[in-house]
Parts: sequence; C-alpha cells; structure tokens
Amino acid sequence: MRKYLWQKSMIMGSQINEFNEYRSKMNEVILSKDNLVIKRLWNLDANTYAEGALSTQTKEMLGLVASMVLRCDDCIKYHLGKCHEQGVTTEQVYEIFAVANIVGGTIVIPHTRRAAEYWEAILAAGQS
Amino acid sequence: MRKYLWQKSMIMGSQINEFNEYRSKMNEVILSKDNLVIKRLWNLDANTYAEGALSTQTKEMLGLVASMVLRCDDCIKYHLGKCHEQGVTTEQVYEIFAVANIVGGTIVIPHTRRAAEYWEAILAAGQS
Amino acid sequence: MRKYLWQKSMIMGSQINEFNEYRSKMNEVILSKDNLVIKRLWNLDANTYAEGALSTQTKEMLGLVASMVLRCDDCIKYHLGKCHEQGVTTEQVYEIFAVANIVGGTIVIPHTRRAAEYWEAILAAGQS
Amino acid sequence: MRKYLWQKSMIMGSQINEFNEYRSKMNEVILSKDNLVIKRLWNLDANTYAEGALSTQTKEMLGLVASMVLRCDDCIKYHLGKCHEQGVTTEQVYEIFAVANIVGGTIVIPHTRRAAEYWEAILAAGQS
Amino acid sequence: MRKYLWQKSMIMGSQINEFNEYRSKMNEVILSKDNLVIKRLWNLDANTYAEGALSTQTKEMLGLVASMVLRCDDCIKYHLGKCHEQGVTTEQVYEIFAVANIVGGTIVIPHTRRAAEYWEAILAAGQS
Amino acid sequence: MRKYLWQKSMIMGSQINEFNEYRSKMNEVILSKDNLVIKRLWNLDANTYAEGALSTQTKEMLGLVASMVLRCDDCIKYHLGKCHEQGVTTEQVYEIFAVANIVGGTIVIPHTRRAAEYWEAILAAGQS
Repeated sequence: MRKYLWQKSMIMGSQINEFNEYRSKMNEVILSKDNLVIKRLWNLDANTYAEGALSTQTKEMLGLVASMVLRCDDCIKYHLGKCHEQGVTTEQVYEIFAVANIVGGTIVIPHTRRAAEYWEAILAAGQS
Repeated sequence: MRKYLWQKSMIMGSQINEFNEYRSKMNEVILSKDNLVIKRLWNLDANTYAEGALSTQTKEMLGLVASMVLRCDDCIKYHLGKCHEQGVTTEQVYEIFAVANIVGGTIVIPHTRRAAEYWEAILAAGQS
Repeated sequence: MRKYLWQKSMIMGSQINEFNEYRSKMNEVILSKDNLVIKRLWNLDANTYAEGALSTQTKEMLGLVASMVLRCDDCIKYHLGKCHEQGVTTEQVYEIFAVANIVGGTIVIPHTRRAAEYWEAILAAGQS
Repeated sequence: MRKYLWQKSMIMGSQINEFNEYRSKMNEVILSKDNLVIKRLWNLDANTYAEGALSTQTKEMLGLVASMVLRCDDCIKYHLGKCHEQGVTTEQVYEIFAVANIVGGTIVIPHTRRAAEYWEAILAAGQS
Repeated sequence: MRKYLWQKSMIMGSQINEFNEYRSKMNEVILSKDNLVIKRLWNLDANTYAEGALSTQTKEMLGLVASMVLRCDDCIKYHLGKCHEQGVTTEQVYEIFAVANIVGGTIVIPHTRRAAEYWEAILAAGQS
Repeated sequence: MRKYLWQKSMIMGSQINEFNEYRSKMNEVILSKDNLVIKRLWNLDANTYAEGALSTQTKEMLGLVASMVLRCDDCIKYHLGKCHEQGVTTEQVYEIFAVANIVGGTIVIPHTRRAAEYWEAILAAGQS
C-alpha cells in the first residue's frame, strides 16, 4: 500500500513537473525576444497578487475563479499551485469550483475535472 | 453644495433603483412560466454564496471578479451591491478590478468604467 | 382594460420595430460598401436555416440557444422572432432558455431577462 | 479488410472508452468531496435534457450546438454520444455543425474536426 | 440638403463626444483611486500601439479586429477612432470587418452594425 | 552540434507535419459529407485573406491576433504558418503577441507559449 501511494505521488508529481518545466522553458524563449510590452505585462502580473487591501490568499482565489470561468486549464493549474502555497484547503477549493460552475455553467465541468485531478496531484506531492 | 450632492445621490440612486426594478419585474415574468430547471438553478445560485468554508464576503468577491472577466455588466452590478452589503471597501473593490483587468485584459476596461460608476452610485446612496 | 392592453402592445411593438428598423438601416449601410466576403457570409447565413435534414424550426431553436450562450442580445431577439414565426411555443422557448442557462451558467440570466421581455413583446404584437 | 475495420473500430472505440473512463473517475473524485452546490448542479444538468415541451432529442441537439459555439471539446463529445443514442443521423449532425460554424465563425472549425473524428468513432463502435 | 448634412454631422458628432466624455470622466474616477496595477496596465496599453517592427497603423487594425471578435463595442469605437487618425480607409475598415465576421461568426454582425454606424459618424465629423 | 540542430528541426518539423496531416485528414472527412453551408463557409474563408485594400500579409496578421484573443491554438498555428509564408518577421510576430496579451489579458499567456513553440518549429523547419 505504502509503495503504491509513493508511486502514485511520483506520477502525480510528474504532472506538476511537466507543467512547470514547459512553462519555464517557453517563458525563457518568449523573454529572450525582448518584447518590452510582454515583459512589463508579466512583471505587472506578479505585482497583481501582492499583499494589499486584499491578502495574496484572497487574490489567488480570485485568480483561480477567473481562470475557471474563462476556461484556461494552464491558468487554473498555476493558480491551484499558488492557492496551495497560500494554505487554501480542499473544502475551500471546492467552494471556488462551485462558484465557477454556477457562474460559468456546465461548460466549466470538464475543466473542473482536470482541476480536481491537478489538485489531487498537488496534495499527493505535498504529502510525499 | 449640499443640494447638489443630494441631487447627485438621487440620480445615482435612480440607477440602482432602475436596475433593481427591471430585475424584479423580469424575474417575476420568468418565474411565472414555471420552468423547473430555471427555478432550481436560481435557488442554487442563492445557495452558492452562503457562508461555508469560505465567507459570503469572499464568495461575493469571487462572483464579482468572475462577472468582470466574463464581461457581464448586470452581473457586475449585482455583485457590487452584494460586496457593499458585505463591507468590502473601495480599495478592495479596486484590487478586484485590478485582478479582472490583468487576467481579462484591456477588453475589461469599458466594463470597469461602468462598474466604477455604479460603485460611486452605491457609495452615494449609502451616504444619503 | 382593453385600451391598456392596446397601449401595452403598442409600446412592446415599438421595441420590435426599433430593433428591425435599426437592423435594416445599418444592413443597408454595410451592404452599400460592396465587401464581397460580408455579402456572401450574409447570404450563407440565410441558407443555414433552410429546411434540410433538420427543419427550419429546429434550426432556429439551435440559433437561439447558440445566441444565448454566446450572450448576444440582438442575435437572441432575431432568433426569437424567427422561432415565433416557426410556431415555437412559450413553454418550448423557456426550455431553450433552461438549456442555455444550465450550459452557459448564471451569466446568461441577464440576457434571459431581456429575452423574456422581447418574447412578451412578440406575443403581445401577435395578439394585437 | 474485415480485420482492418475491426481494428479501426477498436482504436476508435478506445477513444470513446478513454473519454468515458476519465469522466467517471474524475466525477467520482469531485462528488466524494460532498460540495452540495456542485452535486445539485449536476443533478439539475441531468433534468435539463428530460422529455418535456421539447423532446430529449431536440434538447441534446441544443446541448451540442451550445457546446460547439462555446468550443468545449469534452462537452461536444458528451452530447455527440447522447445525440447518437437519440437517433440523430449523420446528415443532421452536420447541419448542427453548420449552424455552429456560421454562428460561431471559423474559430469553431478545429473543434468541428475533432467532433467529426469522434462522430466517426461513435458510428464505428455502433457497427462493431 | 446642406443644412441636413450639417445637422446629421452634429448628431453623429454627438455620439463621438458622448463616448469620449464618458470615457474621460470615468477614467478620472478610476485613476483617482490610485490602484497601481490599473495605472501601469493603462500606461502599458498606450505603449502597445507605438511604432515598432509594426507601424501604429497596423497595430490599431490589430486592436480593432481583436475588439470585434471579442465583441466589445466601446473598444471597437476607440480603435475605429484611432484607425481614422492613422489614415485607414473605409474599404480597409470593411476588410477588417470581414475578417472579424469570418473568424468570429455571425455573432459579430450586430457589433458590425454599431461599428459601421460609428465609422459613418467619424467620417461625417471629419467632413464637417 | 550540426547533427543536434538537424534532429531538433526534425522533431519540430514533425509538430508541423502532425498538425497539417490531422487537418487534411479531417477536412476530407468533413467535406465528404457534402454539407453545402460548411463547404461555402470554407471557400469564403479562403477568399477573406486574398489581396485587396489590405495586403494578404496584413490580413494574416489580423487572423493571427483574432485567433490569439479567442484562444484557439489550432487557428493560431494555421495563421503563424501563413504569416511565415508572407514574410512576417519574428519581431513583428512578437508585437502581434503583445497586442493579443494586452487586449486579451494574461489568460492569453499559455496560448502565447504554445504559439512561441510553434513559431520556433516553423523557423527551424525553414532553416533545415
């Protein structure tokens, strides 16, 4: 059983690694082209989620729900990772999923499935 | 000056009243047709924002940012009203606007203008 | 009472007339510019809803639900008019609204309100 | 030749199986979290397509066209399966594709390709 | 006739003025709140259309077509104004409309009507 | 080193080939069904990008930015290929990416990553 869980977390961890590696690799390619507008937008993106009148935790939850209703799987994965870092619980994540499904409709369900899978991967990686 | 502010708050209050009245009137028409799916979806919508693992305040902020990136002016107005009821401050509202503008792009700006106008109307009505 | 109903149907009829007149006027402006791609697309649009393996009635219902989930009020009005011509009943229209609200989420509700208002206008005009 | 067709239907059948298995597995994960809003929305989703003033067949066609213009591949696959169960013919399916392409534009074409592939898989699985 | 044209250009000019005035007024309200992310995004927005490897003219055409397929009437008006300043001709504007209608589908038509009306207003204002 | 570059261009070339082959194969399936509306729309699509008041190069750039803000990866790949054929440079492509990211928001970033990867593949294939 223990071995099985370890293997499962390896596979799930690989989903996270794959996502992060592709992201880093392509960010490097894009930034190497020195387009100022893109560079500044990306800096600004980082600032958006800084502590302010709202906490980073709240802002990451806002980023997650926005990504879900706009149905962007990679954006969802990114904000799920950040939400986990900010201590958002599974029950809270599912309440965010619920808001996204109600506001955005059943069209959001397939993205919720992939989000749920990635959240399990994050939890498994955190436990390993 | 005093009179001017009072008139301004009357006009702004009328924007809120107009929105609420049209909403109520048409909800009545729709519900009178007894479509069960619509009725249940609307009940469910109310439940979605109830206190839970996340507070109603946080959920209304999630509803607001989702409405903004999906660019639905009426949904934005509705959640701005609810956010105000939940004690969300102007500074916090603008941080939600910022997340929506970064995630959803400059295409969200015209909706941010109308949101800002409605928020001023809510504040003015609250002070009157 | 009779007079009231007549007046109501006049006002509602005017919503329909206004929509149709603006539509005709601007179509004329656009077509006067002789852009071939736009002209052909518009011809093709008319063909799309012709009787075929599916009836025009079914296709107009498809056009309506597509317009609703894409949240285009003018497209919704157009297809509501066509659905009425094709004998679609109020109960059926509301089942289409239900599918659109479930698939597209609560973000579709404000458009459903305006759709419901326009449908009442069509019914009132039909009775006058 | 016969063997080839059998193999082809095996491969295509596997696309259907893969889709259904992932769907079931993740639905189980999601429902295990006991989020009431999500559970009720999913129940409601099932009710939406029940026989009523419109037949289940018509409603599944509505669900298909809505999924296509919203460009959700998994939703398209789901409704293609349901349309097949309801006896919708290939010619009818392509008229739904046509409405979706006209209303939603050429941006729908890549989704139409994947839809066409999945429809062939359904037909092949039905013949095996 | 002369008087009629003059009046027409007055009315059309007023559509342009109304748009610009509301825009300025609300921009002022928003910027007065000192949200740094929004301020920087707006600065960045201005930089995006500066001369570079592509001319400002080309970039404004890109901004116009993007606004059309995303169906944002105010964004369309803004970029139509900029395109006019950059010397884009009516024939060219309609070729941009054509690309937007083909890529985005007939759902773009109602926005094309409003765009065509605003373009006439710009032309009329330019001639007055 | 030389061998490595050759292998890299083989792999990248295969991404292009895979895309084109799937596209051709499924277009064949779709066109074999003889749906007139789809056939005519596809013909019209080809006409849209023909030389006119705007050059084919400019129109392909319009098609690219429209595909990016609508977040359709396959459409992006198609127009990247066409832009390369029309002599659009890397610097120009990144200015189109910048417009798309500003107008459409950070939700466009994951699509920009895949677009950047495909553009590298096109460049590598062109050099081999």
